[in-house]
Amino acid sequence: MKRLVSSDPGFAKAFARLVADRRDVDDDVSRDVRRILERVRTEGDDALIDYTKRFDHWDLVSDGDWRIDAQACEAAYHALDGTLRDALETAAERVRAYHAAQLPERRDYRDDAGVRLGAIWRPVDAAGLYVPGGRAAYPSSLLMNAIPAKVAGVGRLAVVTPTPRGVVNPLVLAAAHIAGVDEIWRIGGAQAVAALAYGTDRIAPVDVVTGPGNAWVAEAKRQLYGTVGIDMVAGPSEILVIADGLNDPGFIAADLLSQAEHDPVAQSILITDNAEFADRVADRVGVELAQLSTRKVAEQSWKDHGVIIEVASLDEASALANALAAEHVELAVADPEPFLESIRHAGSVFIGRNSPEAIGDYVAGPNHVLPTGRRARFASGLSVLDFMKRTSFIELDDDALAAIGPAAVALAEAEGLPAHARSVSIRLDRRKGN
Amino acid sequence: MKRLVSSDPGFAKAFARLVADRRDVDDDVSRDVRRILERVRTEGDDALIDYTKRFDHWDLVSDGDWRIDAQACEAAYHALDGTLRDALETAAERVRAYHAAQLPERRDYRDDAGVRLGAIWRPVDAAGLYVPGGRAAYPSSLLMNAIPAKVAGVGRLAVVTPTPRGVVNPLVLAAAHIAGVDEIWRIGGAQAVAALAYGTDRIAPVDVVTGPGNAWVAEAKRQLYGTVGIDMVAGPSEILVIADGLNDPGFIAADLLSQAEHDPVAQSILITDNAEFADRVADRVGVELAQLSTRKVAEQSWKDHGVIIEVASLDEASALANALAAEHVELAVADPEPFLESIRHAGSVFIGRNSPEAIGDYVAGPNHVLPTGRRARFASGLSVLDFMKRTSFIELDDDALAAIGPAAVALAEAEGLPAHARSVSIRLDRRKGN
Repeated sequence: MKRLVSSDPGFAKAFARLVADRRDVDDDVSRDVRRILERVRTEGDDALIDYTKRFDHWDLVSDGDWRIDAQACEAAYHALDGTLRDALETAAERVRAYHAAQLPERRDYRDDAGVRLGAIWRPVDAAGLYVPGGRAAYPSSLLMNAIPAKVAGVGRLAVVTPTPRGVVNPLVLAAAHIAGVDEIWRIGGAQAVAALAYGTDRIAPVDVVTGPGNAWVAEAKRQLYGTVGIDMVAGPSEILVIADGLNDPGFIAADLLSQAEHDPVAQSILITDNAEFADRVADRVGVELAQLSTRKVAEQSWKDHGVIIEVASLDEASALANALAAEHVELAVADPEPFLESIRHAGSVFIGRNSPEAIGDYVAGPNHVLPTGRRARFASGLSVLDFMKRTSFIELDDDALAAIGPAAVALAEAEGLPAHARSVSIRLDRRKGN
Repeated sequence: MKRLVSSDPGFAKAFARLVADRRDVDDDVSRDVRRILERVRTEGDDALIDYTKRFDHWDLVSDGDWRIDAQACEAAYHALDGTLRDALETAAERVRAYHAAQLPERRDYRDDAGVRLGAIWRPVDAAGLYVPGGRAAYPSSLLMNAIPAKVAGVGRLAVVTPTPRGVVNPLVLAAAHIAGVDEIWRIGGAQAVAALAYGTDRIAPVDVVTGPGNAWVAEAKRQLYGTVGIDMVAGPSEILVIADGLNDPGFIAADLLSQAEHDPVAQSILITDNAEFADRVADRVGVELAQLSTRKVAEQSWKDHGVIIEVASLDEASALANALAAEHVELAVADPEPFLESIRHAGSVFIGRNSPEAIGDYVAGPNHVLPTGRRARFASGLSVLDFMKRTSFIELDDDALAAIGPAAVALAEAEGLPAHARSVSIRLDRRKGN
């Protein structure tokens, strides 16, 4: 963990280094991925069979090898412990409600010139969702990706997930049942993303692919961007906690560790105006760490990437927060509202002492898929809009064309596009009786 | 030009080929672009000086070599012919009005569980806009990119545009004046996109890069996606005209050619239920072509990529249109409204006999930057949203945490994330007085 003090002479430089620190694992996987995509595009299911045998030690032969069916998901749901089932249902219901309120409206109006204008939002026909196997196979992640797609009105939602040596995660299946996933394919890696984008004999192509994955999956999505729509490229997770000295240090320590336990390259940053409080939080992190089953990961993250910044006044915090543009920002201060306004760049903000970030990961309602690595400067969390697209429309009658047509003719001629001009003037001329 | 008849036995196959036809020029420029980006990232302005000398035969020495200042833009504006100036102002005003109505609203509410939830949309701090030199240097394109950024509230809008051998386009400067562009840099190509994304000593980095360009520019944007936000990858333009036999064949021929004159790989498609009308349109295309100064490009596009599809009934048209997912769709039919509903995949729809696509290119108001190459299945036209991002927020008081906290604890424990669970339970425990 690094301690910075904003009044120190070297602070500006040290903070700039912190802002520039990417933490992304820079695997050069682009050539491998290019080859995998090309093979899936040309060889289809045969390439999937080969890669799945090689990487997941899983043979795709029968339909049951290829797919997990709806009955299996339903059975996993009913086999769940009641408390857990209720928790998943609560999460799903709250996420559904929040995203339903995001649905954009159709516009359709006539303006002063008599021109009818508007836009229609519609869902894509089909979406694909990557669900990692292994450690990162989280049912909450399935809900956060699948529910916005379903709320958007997507007709077909196909999940791909690797099942190494056949192992499936029953929690993920139960979540798929709750979310109404339509297909689950037992494939993973770049080859699974390629199958969703290009389609194969077995798997129909989709229009949008979302969901977390390793470096191969992320690179496959990047390369297929344009063939399909994708969600934002995701890097390691991060939290910025802005806290005054009146907080319980144990609460803040727990919040910092909740981020750290995700990944050795996750980052937890505390900004406080109270040096003694900072010491107590640092101590408590040590105490809490000792009890954690995820200690190894959390300790490494805190040691390598944890930061405590002491500021003379919390008035300095917003500028620092905007430079960091963190995925998660907690405002554990007496008067959080001004910070909500002045912190312009953040994926999601957790307001007050009683709103730990983990609530947002599971049950608050807003999406937990958020921009990382300073991308909150320009990117947003996942929403129904990622599964929809907009068609604009224009309608002119004779009068409207007479009103605005001549300007179009003038501009088309100035741009050296005579057929553009002609398509308007030929109609204007008729009106004039020429 | 190709003629297809939907009742022919070979139609399904021929139409599938048409849908699959990419028309993209497949330059393998990714390695070149990677090298250019890396040089700009490490060498900054020196790399820009070198590339600009080499590719644009332009020496970047003095400030005036690097930038076109606001005075020059204002002078270009005042030097414009009055009709043209008014036309540009009309276009700008109408585009501004349409996009202002797109601005999304802040959400802030408390739900049944007492949880405060919401989302705040904010503009990015800075946007960069690529404006091509040469043939495709269109003032309308500058307006269509710059105005949504300014309407979104972007504080700093930087244009990059190559000025080969020093040549600038006064129409583009005048448009920049109208749109309120803040900076114009005389650089182009992949190196200009890299300068915007990474920043150099002279050029501050931006958060989003939009605007059309050649294969190098498009690939640079693709590779920098994630470092900055970008607009959708764009391919060659296309129009689909759905027309009954009651149209003036000259009007429809003009509309088809307005698309064809953009690019030899642009595509114009007519769907009609009247074979005789189809013949007359084809004839009129020949007549109109003879008069066009853009004949060479338009003729090649029509010859190589033009298509007329005869259907037995226009009831067939929507399914074909959805498969094509065209950038522009004209509905030159007696009752266009049902088509507006049933054609789900289109960038922009032009309703009725009196709404030629060129009106949308210039003065209608909706954006003319639209998804091409079947990307209307999942992508939308440029809008204020491309220059904004959303921050969600969450606030819980004691009661709200008591209501939904236990579900978060259950899920975190099930996912094997004890620090997540702890950050919630430590607060719940205090409430219980433990």
